[in-house]
Amino acid sequence: MSNETYFIKKTFELAKKGEGYTSPNPLVGAIIVKGNKIVGWGYHKKAGAPHAEVVAINRAGKKAYNSTLYVNLEPCCHWGRTPPCVDRIINAGIRKVVISTYDPNPVVKGKSVKKLRKAGIEVKVGILAEQAKKLNEVFFKNVKKNLPFVTVKVAQSLDGKITTRSRDSRWITSLKARMLAKSLRDKYDGICVGINTVISDNPTLEGLRKIPFKIILDPDLDIPLESKIVKKKRFIIFTTPASKKKKKKIGYLTRAGQIYFLNTKNGIFDLRKVLEVIYERGICSLFVEGGSFTIGSFFDQRLVDKIYFFLAPKIIGGKEALPSVGGYGAKTLKNTFDIQEIKLERIGRDFLFTGYIP
Amino acid sequence: MSNETYFIKKTFELAKKGEGYTSPNPLVGAIIVKGNKIVGWGYHKKAGAPHAEVVAINRAGKKAYNSTLYVNLEPCCHWGRTPPCVDRIINAGIRKVVISTYDPNPVVKGKSVKKLRKAGIEVKVGILAEQAKKLNEVFFKNVKKNLPFVTVKVAQSLDGKITTRSRDSRWITSLKARMLAKSLRDKYDGICVGINTVISDNPTLEGLRKIPFKIILDPDLDIPLESKIVKKKRFIIFTTPASKKKKKKIGYLTRAGQIYFLNTKNGIFDLRKVLEVIYERGICSLFVEGGSFTIGSFFDQRLVDKIYFFLAPKIIGGKEALPSVGGYGAKTLKNTFDIQEIKLERIGRDFLFTGYIP
Repeated sequence: MSNETYFIKKTFELAKKGEGYTSPNPLVGAIIVKGNKIVGWGYHKKAGAPHAEVVAINRAGKKAYNSTLYVNLEPCCHWGRTPPCVDRIINAGIRKVVISTYDPNPVVKGKSVKKLRKAGIEVKVGILAEQAKKLNEVFFKNVKKNLPFVTVKVAQSLDGKITTRSRDSRWITSLKARMLAKSLRDKYDGICVGINTVISDNPTLEGLRKIPFKIILDPDLDIPLESKIVKKKRFIIFTTPASKKKKKKIGYLTRAGQIYFLNTKNGIFDLRKVLEVIYERGICSLFVEGGSFTIGSFFDQRLVDKIYFFLAPKIIGGKEALPSVGGYGAKTLKNTFDIQEIKLERIGRDFLFTGYIP
Repeated sequence: MSNETYFIKKTFELAKKGEGYTSPNPLVGAIIVKGNKIVGWGYHKKAGAPHAEVVAINRAGKKAYNSTLYVNLEPCCHWGRTPPCVDRIINAGIRKVVISTYDPNPVVKGKSVKKLRKAGIEVKVGILAEQAKKLNEVFFKNVKKNLPFVTVKVAQSLDGKITTRSRDSRWITSLKARMLAKSLRDKYDGICVGINTVISDNPTLEGLRKIPFKIILDPDLDIPLESKIVKKKRFIIFTTPASKKKKKKIGYLTRAGQIYFLNTKNGIFDLRKVLEVIYERGICSLFVEGGSFTIGSFFDQRLVDKIYFFLAPKIIGGKEALPSVGGYGAKTLKNTFDIQEIKLERIGRDFLFTGYIP
């Protein structure tokens, strides 16, 4: 492994520390190296906090002079909530900047690199670029599509069921798999479920360390006021305008969270519209957990970016048992969703498939 | 690895060469070793052919005297289609016999070992016994339950579907996985499908090297006379007595294969009875390939011993798409089938789960 690869990997590790907290900003880690010694390092902790490069430069102090800066994403050159990093890099007298990948925003892309070079700084771009894009898959999706990054999580039997025919669903996977699934919530801004899941499971949908936003798809506003999600607040309920007649319920709910009125078609929301609405509210990544109908609808509307499929080594069987992916489904095998970059790992006695939907 | 383990493993390799052809006999391989050199070897090729021990002794000739015989299963001591192996072992002057596992038949178990010891031969039993039982899983099931060994094979999407909602099913898995599935048929005496699979797919159900018996579950005798299965003969159709009125069809079919009349209950056959009937006809192992309803019924009636689940890395989705395991299914999660000894391998771009149902 070259030095450059080594230090860029270190920036990835640093960047990941901010995971789940930086929206709408990307994950960024920075390292300052002088004479093969790390003299400064930093990462972006959360939106509004200093950028990784600035943290690293501050930590390096005078040692930043004539050093090399490693960073996983092209530094910013514009005024946001904080001043542009490029100016700080130039002013600190840094000699060389090694960047993993350009900023995906076409308006920004390459501008900072240009500015740094103009200031006489040597700039190298492209070390582990694909990994860097993966690390910031949420940010790249956000910038390119102006939509949240959507991940679907399923916990099913080997034969693809998420409940028995009598709707027994607790639990299919082992505690270890469920804890991992819970920790995945920490990486997302919002968790989405359909109303049936709220009614049948009454879940909290909390992460291990974090309280994400809960996005509930509830056309008839059936959500029980005593449900854990309502009690814990931080929710956005999507319901149809027809629910406006439930005045008292709406009054109560709007004191605890938000309600958004949206028409359905054949009982199904336009989920792209749902994504647009929550993206405007700062939810840059969505973790869709169920149930069968909701997950099926996200696939039917071709809005899924990534999947986590937990498989328990058991057969549930039954024509009437709920499948993990309901909805309409693909009409022919030409219309199925091929999973790319599929990865498989064992989680205790269960299996976890991870992959991307192109 | 000790010498004994090494040579017993060799007997497994030899035994496997008979796979698919020895019913109702077990798979047996034998090796004769003298002065650490293999002087004789053999395996049981097919029912009626000489037993592995005899083949090995014949090959060793005079060198069998004062040698060690390795064999994966306790030799026989009774007259079947061939004379008892134990007598040949004693007469050949073999000094020591190393056996992996006892004969499972309680009437035979240990008797040959006793007889050999009585003749002054040193006998050791139990080297890799579990592997030896697995090798002869069909034979052990046959002897213990007087029923065929039942394996279910499924080729599904990650989300457990075997067709799309429009019943498109060709192909879900890749050619490589399908060829492997085809080669698995070579190991079984019979292949079972429901009538819907015959009508929708018109499969041949042949192996790569072998033409197994086809067992068709067809309550209303809907099988098309022009279907490949009828043309290739070697089939047993299970149908209800009500089908007897289709006289002409029955006449035609009984010239090509066999028909067995059996009542249904709610449209479902008593599959234990089906297994009993085919076992009487010499079918010691059954490979159940579909469809959703047939596989579901085998699970519902708790008759599955082993599973092969091929998973393609794709999502089909849809409430109306056929699940791999239909039927009634488990009522609660306490009633699901836990898969034991689960193994996973990649077959090209697909995944294959293998396991046992206790």
